[in-house]
Amino acid sequence: FLFHKCFCASTGMACLSCLLEYGTVKIIVIRNKAVGSVFRLIQFLIILYVIGYVCVVRKSYQVKDSVISTVTTKVKGTGFTNISGLGAHVWDVADYNIPPEGESSFFVLTNMIITPNQMQSSCPELPDQSTICMSDSDCTEGSSDVRGNGIQTGLCVNYSETVKTCEVLSWCPLEIDTDLPENPLLAAAENFTVLIKNTVTYPKFNFHKRNILPDVNSSYLKQCEFNRITDPHCPIFRLKDMVAEAEEDFQTMATRGGVLGILIDWSCDLDFPEHYCGPKYSFCRMDNKNPENNVAPGYNFRFAKYYKTTDDVETRTLIKSYGIRFDVIVFGTAGKFNIVPTIVNVGAALTILGLVSPVKSAVLGLGV
Amino acid sequence: FLFHKCFCASTGMACLSCLLEYGTVKIIVIRNKAVGSVFRLIQFLIILYVIGYVCVVRKSYQVKDSVISTVTTKVKGTGFTNISGLGAHVWDVADYNIPPEGESSFFVLTNMIITPNQMQSSCPELPDQSTICMSDSDCTEGSSDVRGNGIQTGLCVNYSETVKTCEVLSWCPLEIDTDLPENPLLAAAENFTVLIKNTVTYPKFNFHKRNILPDVNSSYLKQCEFNRITDPHCPIFRLKDMVAEAEEDFQTMATRGGVLGILIDWSCDLDFPEHYCGPKYSFCRMDNKNPENNVAPGYNFRFAKYYKTTDDVETRTLIKSYGIRFDVIVFGTAGKFNIVPTIVNVGAALTILGLVSPVKSAVLGLGV
Amino acid sequence: FLFHKCFCASTGMACLSCLLEYGTVKIIVIRNKAVGSVFRLIQFLIILYVIGYVCVVRKSYQVKDSVISTVTTKVKGTGFTNISGLGAHVWDVADYNIPPEGESSFFVLTNMIITPNQMQSSCPELPDQSTICMSDSDCTEGSSDVRGNGIQTGLCVNYSETVKTCEVLSWCPLEIDTDLPENPLLAAAENFTVLIKNTVTYPKFNFHKRNILPDVNSSYLKQCEFNRITDPHCPIFRLKDMVAEAEEDFQTMATRGGVLGILIDWSCDLDFPEHYCGPKYSFCRMDNKNPENNVAPGYNFRFAKYYKTTDDVETRTLIKSYGIRFDVIVFGTAGKFNIVPTIVNVGAALTILGLVSPVKSAVLGLGV
Repeated sequence: FLFHKCFCASTGMACLSCLLEYGTVKIIVIRNKAVGSVFRLIQFLIILYVIGYVCVVRKSYQVKDSVISTVTTKVKGTGFTNISGLGAHVWDVADYNIPPEGESSFFVLTNMIITPNQMQSSCPELPDQSTICMSDSDCTEGSSDVRGNGIQTGLCVNYSETVKTCEVLSWCPLEIDTDLPENPLLAAAENFTVLIKNTVTYPKFNFHKRNILPDVNSSYLKQCEFNRITDPHCPIFRLKDMVAEAEEDFQTMATRGGVLGILIDWSCDLDFPEHYCGPKYSFCRMDNKNPENNVAPGYNFRFAKYYKTTDDVETRTLIKSYGIRFDVIVFGTAGKFNIVPTIVNVGAALTILGLVSPVKSAVLGLGV
Repeated sequence: FLFHKCFCASTGMACLSCLLEYGTVKIIVIRNKAVGSVFRLIQFLIILYVIGYVCVVRKSYQVKDSVISTVTTKVKGTGFTNISGLGAHVWDVADYNIPPEGESSFFVLTNMIITPNQMQSSCPELPDQSTICMSDSDCTEGSSDVRGNGIQTGLCVNYSETVKTCEVLSWCPLEIDTDLPENPLLAAAENFTVLIKNTVTYPKFNFHKRNILPDVNSSYLKQCEFNRITDPHCPIFRLKDMVAEAEEDFQTMATRGGVLGILIDWSCDLDFPEHYCGPKYSFCRMDNKNPENNVAPGYNFRFAKYYKTTDDVETRTLIKSYGIRFDVIVFGTAGKFNIVPTIVNVGAALTILGLVSPVKSAVLGLGV
Repeated sequence: FLFHKCFCASTGMACLSCLLEYGTVKIIVIRNKAVGSVFRLIQFLIILYVIGYVCVVRKSYQVKDSVISTVTTKVKGTGFTNISGLGAHVWDVADYNIPPEGESSFFVLTNMIITPNQMQSSCPELPDQSTICMSDSDCTEGSSDVRGNGIQTGLCVNYSETVKTCEVLSWCPLEIDTDLPENPLLAAAENFTVLIKNTVTYPKFNFHKRNILPDVNSSYLKQCEFNRITDPHCPIFRLKDMVAEAEEDFQTMATRGGVLGILIDWSCDLDFPEHYCGPKYSFCRMDNKNPENNVAPGYNFRFAKYYKTTDDVETRTLIKSYGIRFDVIVFGTAGKFNIVPTIVNVGAALTILGLVSPVKSAVLGLGV
């Protein structure tokens, strides 16, 4: 309307004067307690929403930033096994932590099937519907089943006194992985501890902090252990405690392996002093949680240690290793007061307040 | 205006009565079909926007959550090579999967350059503009080129009958990596399969699910293989199929190596029953896709197996391994109806509807 | 108000005619230069906000997408050490890069404590408050301290001529990690280089690009080295330069280890031609930056190389390796013009403009 008037007016001073005109609506004030109460109630609800939801819950007056994080871990502890074929063996971190370092996860070996002294040679396949044979004609030279253990030589040989299977070229003797120990061999792993060093950065606020808080000194760090009540700031965790916090049993989980999430929450309100911003730890099992859907449970992988015999033949020890992979997941958002989102959100809130006017008119229209 | 009146009024009951007053604008109803039509059209477009875009496309009435995911993988299959120097060799998962486990990626070795029996000693450098020499004075004792293979001894020795190069202290004999096999040595890798176990969590909705769906049983899992049409829920993938889905040729990719992304999309609308929420798989090549920009193609890295000879000297087999790294990338957002975003978005939409009034006034102003 | 009228009216043509009615407010134009100026100033500020903040700073007219990225790295360089017990030794990438490949990080060994020829046997524990003993009764057979090195045999034996400690079953001899070399053994690592290959995808815009830009050719790539001024597009970085850019000293950091972040920013405005979209590199130290909070500094881990002696006994060389882990962190958001967010944001801005009317009324109310 005003624009229209301005376009009609001549340019120059006449237009300037026109720009400084204003139009306003004629307002009639009517005293009606019922409509007035509804009107005030709506205004009250909107102000409540602005203060309660926008300011308190969402903190919309703040600029947000996402965490950038670095994690390093160090496991401590030794275990002892006495497996037939391997003999008495003490396991330390270089033995059970495979691979020796990960970006933000570490693996602790708890159970295993060891097949020592494998060599490249030929041996009968493990008996199976597709590998049991009566004569050489049942076997195909050069064929290789993706679920098998090697390349068939075309011969049918004795697997045991009663069963004949196709012979394969492979690392022999083959691994027999059907008799997994029912109790984890490295049951002592439940008492291993891990030191988690986590440094976070909120680049927008130039905020840096470690999970080893400033009030933690060397001597405390040498003997402390995380406990939600007595030692909530100690960054050293006993494996058993973490698994227990996730409401799992360590020995059960250790038998077939699994994945445990170590969640570190760095959500912070940086309008408060820096020392209120600290890590909050929680733990949960990350792999299958649904007992009804229990196909292919656990976590395991195979690795080998390679040796050479004196006559230069390569041998290896194959280890099918079951264990717990601990994934450290760092997350969080920090917020800090900033004028721009404050203006934007107060503006939006005022807009909604402005809305009450038409609503009021409608109410009035209905009421008259 | 109202505030002003309230401030002027005396406090107490007088003010309360003032609070319950209301001002309203005097509205004149004019019948003008042209302006009325435009007004209704604008209202219609806004309602269309609210329903179509805000509700259907963006689902703004929902609370959203991002996926937290855990991935474990297990590769199966055996390959056979017959390389001069190494002899007939069967490769199983412990041999070709390096390192044995990753957080959410796995590597399958497909091609390689093997340099066996390296020892710490001295040997002539590979011939190159900077290493070819005429006499000892061309070589500098102790110098080490970042692109070279060792520390120069200061001597100039015969590399071949015609060429002399500076001698270096290094793992000798040096690797000659210029003649990479044109066909991948482990071509059989295309028939290897991988079982991907992926568990996702939407913490806000306490929603947990695996990619091994509840209707998958053990016997199906033992023999199934992912196929987009016949077996879309089988979590076992043939490597060749995944590469083909990414519109690449396995043998070509296997020769020089590469990175393949396995993308699992868990985007879900949790207002629908849980069984509608499932994984959607897609595959794409992640490294260089631009044939015109083909500098430094492929993917390879070096690793070594260390041995000790009977007289306690360390030797190693250096393997420059080319292969495909499969990165499993899990993403997705879930939404579920919640009253708070519904109110906020309906409020915002009403605000825009309220806008039509001034626009209408302007239109009227222009029209008169 | 209008709805109310419509509901009262009879259906059919009567209602249609009612839909095409419109109500408008009676507007009185008053010439008041003071109030008019304030009104225009507010309008000006809002338009400034819309253009300046919404359009220029936030680019709210664009659809956004987050980067999907793949990183591969390759380190080059050789170092030389002469440690007592190990002798002269040249280190190449297969030796110092552990594990041989990571998803988006790599580790360079710079300092170490080597304990060769460890065997499973028994030996006296390292002296400590809890391990020093007077007689066998001070030691408990089978007990294992989480901070100790093995399983106690129950015997108290001579550690040195003056000190007796409990005997443990372990990999013996035990590692003595108190005398870390003050200067990094692999000081030459500062001149190692790393080629970082990074391919990014913005799936919404079907945009793919590598950090090896199209104008980089093979011969340039063979000899170039990143320099912020002279070679800003070369993807080969000298380790020392990266550490220097993070304002750290390489030799200091190398002694006790650390974590260095290589940040690649791919934020792009895809309304501009594609070649303006390129990687921006920055570097910062990711682990502890706070010299006052210096508990448990650095980065190290243990790994072992396993051998078998001629009489089939397993031995190992334990390496406590200190070094720098380089984490490649790729981030960025791309935006491109799209009609939907443009409409939404222009709508919101107009809404705020519409707000000026009530504000003006209030101002007028106060002013009269």
